[in-house]
Amino acid sequence: MSDLLVVGSVAFDSLETPYGKREKILGGSGNYFSISASFFSKVRLVGVVGQDFPKDHVSLLESRGVDTEGLQWADGETFHWSGYYGEDLNQAHTIDTRLNVFETFSPDLPESYCDSEVIFLANIDPELQLRVLEQVKSPRLVACDTMNFWIHGKRQALIKLLRQVNMFVLNEQEIRDLSGEKNLLAAVEWVREHGPQTVVIKRGEYGAMLCTPKSVFWIPAFPLEHVRDPTGAGDTFAGGMMGYLSQVKELTDEHLRQSIAVGTVMASFNVERFSFDRLLQLDEAQIMERYSQLRNMVAFDERKLPFR
Amino acid sequence: MSDLLVVGSVAFDSLETPYGKREKILGGSGNYFSISASFFSKVRLVGVVGQDFPKDHVSLLESRGVDTEGLQWADGETFHWSGYYGEDLNQAHTIDTRLNVFETFSPDLPESYCDSEVIFLANIDPELQLRVLEQVKSPRLVACDTMNFWIHGKRQALIKLLRQVNMFVLNEQEIRDLSGEKNLLAAVEWVREHGPQTVVIKRGEYGAMLCTPKSVFWIPAFPLEHVRDPTGAGDTFAGGMMGYLSQVKELTDEHLRQSIAVGTVMASFNVERFSFDRLLQLDEAQIMERYSQLRNMVAFDERKLPFR
Repeated sequence: MSDLLVVGSVAFDSLETPYGKREKILGGSGNYFSISASFFSKVRLVGVVGQDFPKDHVSLLESRGVDTEGLQWADGETFHWSGYYGEDLNQAHTIDTRLNVFETFSPDLPESYCDSEVIFLANIDPELQLRVLEQVKSPRLVACDTMNFWIHGKRQALIKLLRQVNMFVLNEQEIRDLSGEKNLLAAVEWVREHGPQTVVIKRGEYGAMLCTPKSVFWIPAFPLEHVRDPTGAGDTFAGGMMGYLSQVKELTDEHLRQSIAVGTVMASFNVERFSFDRLLQLDEAQIMERYSQLRNMVAFDERKLPFR
Repeated sequence: MSDLLVVGSVAFDSLETPYGKREKILGGSGNYFSISASFFSKVRLVGVVGQDFPKDHVSLLESRGVDTEGLQWADGETFHWSGYYGEDLNQAHTIDTRLNVFETFSPDLPESYCDSEVIFLANIDPELQLRVLEQVKSPRLVACDTMNFWIHGKRQALIKLLRQVNMFVLNEQEIRDLSGEKNLLAAVEWVREHGPQTVVIKRGEYGAMLCTPKSVFWIPAFPLEHVRDPTGAGDTFAGGMMGYLSQVKELTDEHLRQSIAVGTVMASFNVERFSFDRLLQLDEAQIMERYSQLRNMVAFDERKLPFR
């Protein structure tokens, strides 16, 4: 239905997990989001790469229906993150972050992007997230992510941004830090008072929680024997969720719940292998099968209880 | 249907949470379990108290259909735990554990208990848990809990016990420690090789996971604005679960799932107030209402996804 715009990083990752080590593989929030969302929607990608970025990968994005007109080519090298995961795959440890061309990135939208109706602001500087919104004419859904670095370092810009956001997607430590509330329901109330009425709390291996003004929805992560590389799980989740939401007219609770389930399924595939190795092998039947399995995992009867 | 036997502690707790402080209130795993299960089943309680234990509380248990013939009165004082919870209510901090009469406790069953068909061995020394099973003639369902203290200190007795257990109920740190597996599905496989084919993993505010040979089931904790006292949550959960299971003929996946949902609901009420304050105010309509709310919290449609 509506074109989906995402702004985020397009990057190289060098990383090690208990399952292996990879040097300079493709990553970045904008990248993970776009490939995941591309199963459901056309995507307009806004980001920056350096002269070292492989043209093949751009062709691949385009072959998946991702519009790369908004991808800037700057002088210098592409953003490069290095890190590792220990036994606790919920926790990424950064060794080195080379922002490179990302350091001076300013998200200028191509004219053709300015009518985008569904927007996802991946985790970048809230001042840049705001700059994207200034250029979009009349979005019907704005969702954003953030991280502790901005919560502590650019709190005022983030709070200014939130006034223009409908749907806030962040992890549970982030919402606790931002709101100063330990209890998640109280933290969600704090967010609501600052703008977004719909809040999605990501909880890693514990799944996700959706709070709308009408209801609370909870979904587990899909249990896997082997999580080989958790990098990009949150952005792949958001990609599936927003890809779905861009295709429906109304943001009913039913659609929101289903979008979270789709995001959960997409993230579960992504972490099975490094980089985009799994997402690029995925087909619709596999997505539908895991979606049904997830639904079955939470089902229980509405039956009269055997009171004494 | 079947009488439900529980062995566990009957104790005093002195504790502080961010919501208040209480001295020498009633607690103990056997106590929480019995009161929770009593909504669904008659309960036979095995435990020990000292001469200081209030007779009124015994009358209260009996008025709720708890058979206290198995409650031993020993010379000395009742088990007394002191501790506190900080902002992280998932984590109990022990200040002092006075085992008192519990130190020399030997669970001798009254003759009338030996035909019990459904057994719950709450978290006590696995040698004592084994002793209970030696006295029961032909149980159809044996479930047990444990803790890290026994996993590390009495590993052989615990492993011997597991061979006689159908259903193992423990928290995620415990199953990881016991099995040496970080991944929960791998940890469940380890447990299956040692006896119990049904495993219930408690995850505090993240809910619980049920693994049967046929399926995996996930349920969230019921989200609450105020958790005032988490003491006894796990035993209240087990009480609701086992109370339900004692009333059904077959342990189908459907019944097991529903029992977990009932346990989740009972635990959510328990933590709203200190000691048994909430459980003793609870009625069937409130339980049913929250059960329905919990069911609604995890529901999402089986619908065709909008693939591009």
